[in-house]
Amino acid sequence: MNLLYDEKLDGPLPPVDRTALIEELQQTLPDMTLLHEREDLQPFECDGLAAYRILPMLVVIPDTVDQVQAFMKICHQRKVPVVARGAGTGLSGGALPLEGGVLLVLARLKTILEINPEGRFARVQPGVRNLAISEAAAPYQLYYAPDPSSQIACSIGGNVAENAGGVHCLKYGLTVHNLLKLEIITVEGERMTLGSDALDSAGFDLMALFTGSEGMLGIVVEVTVKLLPRPQVAKVLMASFDDVGKAGKAVGDIISAGIIPGGLEMMDSLAIQAAEDFIHAGYPVDAKAILLCELDGVEADVNDECERVRAVLENSGATAISLAKDDAERALFWAGRKNAFPAVGRISPDYYCMDGTIPRRELPRVLQGIADLSVEYDLRVANVFHAGDGNMHPLILFDANKPGELERAEAIGGKILELCVAVGGSITGEHGVGREKINQMCSQFNDDELLTFFAVKAAFDPDGLLNPGKNIPTLNRCAEFGAMHIHNGKLPFPELERF
Amino acid sequence: MNLLYDEKLDGPLPPVDRTALIEELQQTLPDMTLLHEREDLQPFECDGLAAYRILPMLVVIPDTVDQVQAFMKICHQRKVPVVARGAGTGLSGGALPLEGGVLLVLARLKTILEINPEGRFARVQPGVRNLAISEAAAPYQLYYAPDPSSQIACSIGGNVAENAGGVHCLKYGLTVHNLLKLEIITVEGERMTLGSDALDSAGFDLMALFTGSEGMLGIVVEVTVKLLPRPQVAKVLMASFDDVGKAGKAVGDIISAGIIPGGLEMMDSLAIQAAEDFIHAGYPVDAKAILLCELDGVEADVNDECERVRAVLENSGATAISLAKDDAERALFWAGRKNAFPAVGRISPDYYCMDGTIPRRELPRVLQGIADLSVEYDLRVANVFHAGDGNMHPLILFDANKPGELERAEAIGGKILELCVAVGGSITGEHGVGREKINQMCSQFNDDELLTFFAVKAAFDPDGLLNPGKNIPTLNRCAEFGAMHIHNGKLPFPELERF
Repeated sequence: MNLLYDEKLDGPLPPVDRTALIEELQQTLPDMTLLHEREDLQPFECDGLAAYRILPMLVVIPDTVDQVQAFMKICHQRKVPVVARGAGTGLSGGALPLEGGVLLVLARLKTILEINPEGRFARVQPGVRNLAISEAAAPYQLYYAPDPSSQIACSIGGNVAENAGGVHCLKYGLTVHNLLKLEIITVEGERMTLGSDALDSAGFDLMALFTGSEGMLGIVVEVTVKLLPRPQVAKVLMASFDDVGKAGKAVGDIISAGIIPGGLEMMDSLAIQAAEDFIHAGYPVDAKAILLCELDGVEADVNDECERVRAVLENSGATAISLAKDDAERALFWAGRKNAFPAVGRISPDYYCMDGTIPRRELPRVLQGIADLSVEYDLRVANVFHAGDGNMHPLILFDANKPGELERAEAIGGKILELCVAVGGSITGEHGVGREKINQMCSQFNDDELLTFFAVKAAFDPDGLLNPGKNIPTLNRCAEFGAMHIHNGKLPFPELERF
Repeated sequence: MNLLYDEKLDGPLPPVDRTALIEELQQTLPDMTLLHEREDLQPFECDGLAAYRILPMLVVIPDTVDQVQAFMKICHQRKVPVVARGAGTGLSGGALPLEGGVLLVLARLKTILEINPEGRFARVQPGVRNLAISEAAAPYQLYYAPDPSSQIACSIGGNVAENAGGVHCLKYGLTVHNLLKLEIITVEGERMTLGSDALDSAGFDLMALFTGSEGMLGIVVEVTVKLLPRPQVAKVLMASFDDVGKAGKAVGDIISAGIIPGGLEMMDSLAIQAAEDFIHAGYPVDAKAILLCELDGVEADVNDECERVRAVLENSGATAISLAKDDAERALFWAGRKNAFPAVGRISPDYYCMDGTIPRRELPRVLQGIADLSVEYDLRVANVFHAGDGNMHPLILFDANKPGELERAEAIGGKILELCVAVGGSITGEHGVGREKINQMCSQFNDDELLTFFAVKAAFDPDGLLNPGKNIPTLNRCAEFGAMHIHNGKLPFPELERF
């Protein structure tokens, strides 16, 4: 395997002649917005993970795909590193700028090029907001299924880069399952099509490889997404539990009963109380956990499934079960869930949102593990998450102004992710690795696996110019981090013995 | 891009010291079956595409994953090319042996390692038959959705290699959409995990990249597949049409109406007559085309959808519509479809099965195009296919004993695939590229795209030892084939003007 590439990526970024680059960009692309004054660069120094801030060398904001292509050719020739950014809502620092690189903002490429009801697809530019696709498809009774909580703001290009999920991905899949085709600009500035309008494409599945690659393989300039028929009806059940583990087990029981809910979400008591104080959603504030289970489809089917889910919940020890009586109450139940993060923000000066994924059956064990770690590190942890697909979002509450709390928050966060890996899970479900979790990648993957990632990266970007320092750690970094490799839980993980 | 690799793959295979290899394998792996006598090798000289036959240098049939790993280490050290083979039912010559290489038969790795009803997955060895997974999951009311016509015989390892489809992949997706995790042995003989038991995996999506890679990136030794709840009921409607184009348009109308059938299949008059003569399925022999539309789910839902599909079919000009009155008649309707290939085999000395995929909306135009080509080349073509996802299987009827017919059959086959590409489709839906369609890859992909494939290939297999000469053509081969590149129909394709 290519150890040389690892060393290359680990070295300093190539020096860039900033003045000459600005001059060439202004001459070659006079119509493209180019920001280079400090005060203009400031708004772009971070993405949704505001804990990391770096001022980019330059920001460019193209209006056309041709500009993106010409820009990439110039950067390739000059060996300038490029970080692509959509709406900047990402939570893992994937669009964190580089001091010595250009931030390529794709937000103005926001045209919906085609809504095709017969082919059931939409063809859009990368800066189109996730929700705008469903709005444009609504007249045809169609919608785009993946729905990250940020869907009102986040853009589809970023969704592709992070393989975004959402409440409905349990039933309808992640971004990668809802794509047909991508148009990309390579690091050399060539345009290329990945995937096809048809069911399958010949050759290797580069579209799937590209999805979730966090801007490391090329720049997305057009996305063809699948559209689904809107379900006729949706109903939501709320179940209360006096024990978190019981709620976790109920999740597995629902799935085992042969039901795939449209959404199956869990909140623990800290999250319930914070959300209820904020939204007044009608949550039971004395419950240790609640489950929200949405069922969607045609009416008869949904009614039947509601009864079956109710029976499962009763058997699993739910202390109360209520069905939202109408669409208004259903919206209220969901408003509590969707505003749980800001609600937690009201009860703590700072919080740190994790994003680990585990096999569903491990929910009770991992929830207990998190509770134990919370005691050990003396920090409160609220749990609000996509329980149905085992995608956890523990929120670690801390106060950055109290000495040592930030460090303890980071430490417990790392421990929680290692716990996820140890039970056979992954350090990210839908937020990506970015800069935030790059050290935890050393826990999840061994050297051979990391070298395979780099060999694939080198196939697209041999000079390592695209989003360097994100997503895949170099072996040197892992050696420095000193991670114990706990690949899929098959190697010993002493922490686990406690759980 | 890596032009050197293209040249390397285009050169002669490395010479192998056959005697020394046999000796080392017998000494190191005395318990592994090793075939080297001509009469023992003969049964392995082709796969389901019997038109191509090559005697392998050796055949090995391991019983354990450890043997596979040790075998790969020996081959890697000696630079011996390896072709992996499952059940050998593939239709594109993907498992066609090499004169100078070893055929690695994985059929004896056929243990079902785990059926997990709560996690809804099955963990199996690569030689397990597709249908055997659903049989083992049946006691839990679960099944494995992708159902290639060969599912009684084909093995899951081959399904992964070819990203196999089937009647139900319109609703439930291809193989890649139904996988969680792969265990592979790399060309160096290292074991590696791709994907995870959880919803998503960090890093690049190597599992999706591997799926459909036709044995060019590594050897699959364990597959974790998703299991789905069995639908409560399934019903099938049969609609007759007096015009093939109307039937093609009806397919789009059903999908546009917001219905996703479990299966949506089309047969034209030649296929109908052949199948009816063979199976007596009750097909209307005077119809120009029939559609079979299966709806599955809970009963109330299915009944509702049946009525909606019936209304769409009436509006689309169906001349007759019948609902299978019970499960026996439903099975009979499907038996005609599933035996259509052998049925066509009864009315022609030889036939050649194509596998092109097109956007659904292009069905009427492409069907007309095939009819015109049939007249031009003076060969009958029967159409039997997965209409719902635009995956066509034109069967070209010919007699290899009549001078020139085989050549005409190959020529019209190539034209049909080029037509699929020209309307935005792909040269393969579910059978793979293999040896059969390697020249047509030159039509679908340009040089940059082919070089990207090779760069990815080199990341896994820098010496080009895994299944060389299949799936991805070298640039030299394309130059010799002299294909006009008609990438996604965006470049001119004079043939299309006629349609």
